[in-house]
Order: sequence, then C-alpha cells, then structure tokens
Amino acid sequence: MEAWDLVGIAAGSLTMFGFYPQIIKMYRTKLVGDLSLPMLLQYTTGIFLWLLYGIYLNNTILIVSNAVSLASFLCGIALYLKYNNKSRPADR
Amino acid sequence: MEAWDLVGIAAGSLTMFGFYPQIIKMYRTKLVGDLSLPMLLQYTTGIFLWLLYGIYLNNTILIVSNAVSLASFLCGIALYLKYNNKSRPADR
Repeated sequence: MEAWDLVGIAAGSLTMFGFYPQIIKMYRTKLVGDLSLPMLLQYTTGIFLWLLYGIYLNNTILIVSNAVSLASFLCGIALYLKYNNKSRPADR
Repeated sequence: MEAWDLVGIAAGSLTMFGFYPQIIKMYRTKLVGDLSLPMLLQYTTGIFLWLLYGIYLNNTILIVSNAVSLASFLCGIALYLKYNNKSRPADR
C-alpha cells in the first residue's frame, strides 16, 4: 500500500462520518431551525443513488461508505422533522 | 453510455452541489447557531484530501466534484464564523 492510498482512506473515513457531528449536535440541543431541509434531501437522494451505483459496480468501498453516510442523513431528516415542529411552534 | 451511468452522473451532481442549499440559507437568514462546526471542518478536511487523491489519480471527476464541494464548505465555514458571533452575543 502506498502513502497515497492512506490519503484516500483518510479522505473516505472523514467524509463517510462527516455528518455525524451534526447528528450529535441535533440530538443534544434539539435545535434544527438553521439547517436546510433541501440540503438534507439533496444529499440523501444523491447518496442513495451513489449506493445503487456502488451495488451495480459491485464496489465495496462505494457501498460501505455510502451506506454509512445514508444512515446519518436519514437520522438527520428524522431529527429535523421531529424538532423543527417542536422548536418553532409559531411557524406551524 | 448505459442507463447505470446516468445513475452515477445524477448521484455525483446531487452530492457535488449538496451543500449549496445550506449556503443559501445561511446567507439569507444570517443564522448559523444550529450548525455543527466540527461537521463543517471534518467535511472540509475530508473533501480536501479527496481532491488531493483525485489529483494523484489524475481523475477529472474526483477533481471537479471535490473542488466544487470544497468551495461550498469553505463558504460555509466563512459564513459560520461571520454570523455565529453576531447572532449569539451572549455566548461570547
């Protein structure tokens, strides 16, 4: 394995778990009003298509990394929908 | 080009521009308090490494998509730092 492969592995690891700090913050603070729902939906759709493409290519790295990302964005949408109503009753 | 390639292209297009709706919301509302700075920094570092890895592999798709993503996350960090102080004076 070359040093450059470590760069690729580090890149994949960081972005695969990239949304988890946001999930933790949403869960702790219960505040989601400043997040963009279109951003969440766009990433979720895109990552789902990456996952399908990875399955088609039978590429384990694409499948695993996008499955992990997809889980975090689905959690993000669930937390957004749960707390966006509660924290902003005036918006209803 | 196969139909599956269209899935890959759609996946790449959606995730490449995935953070732009959030940038637009930050710019319009000037509210960033619910965003996670570690999330922004983790994605920025990871995407930067993806860009380096793409340059090493001489892969145009990796280079272009990560350059576009990196620009949006750098904008996101700049907007976060600009508005996080202003919108939450009590936190200083």
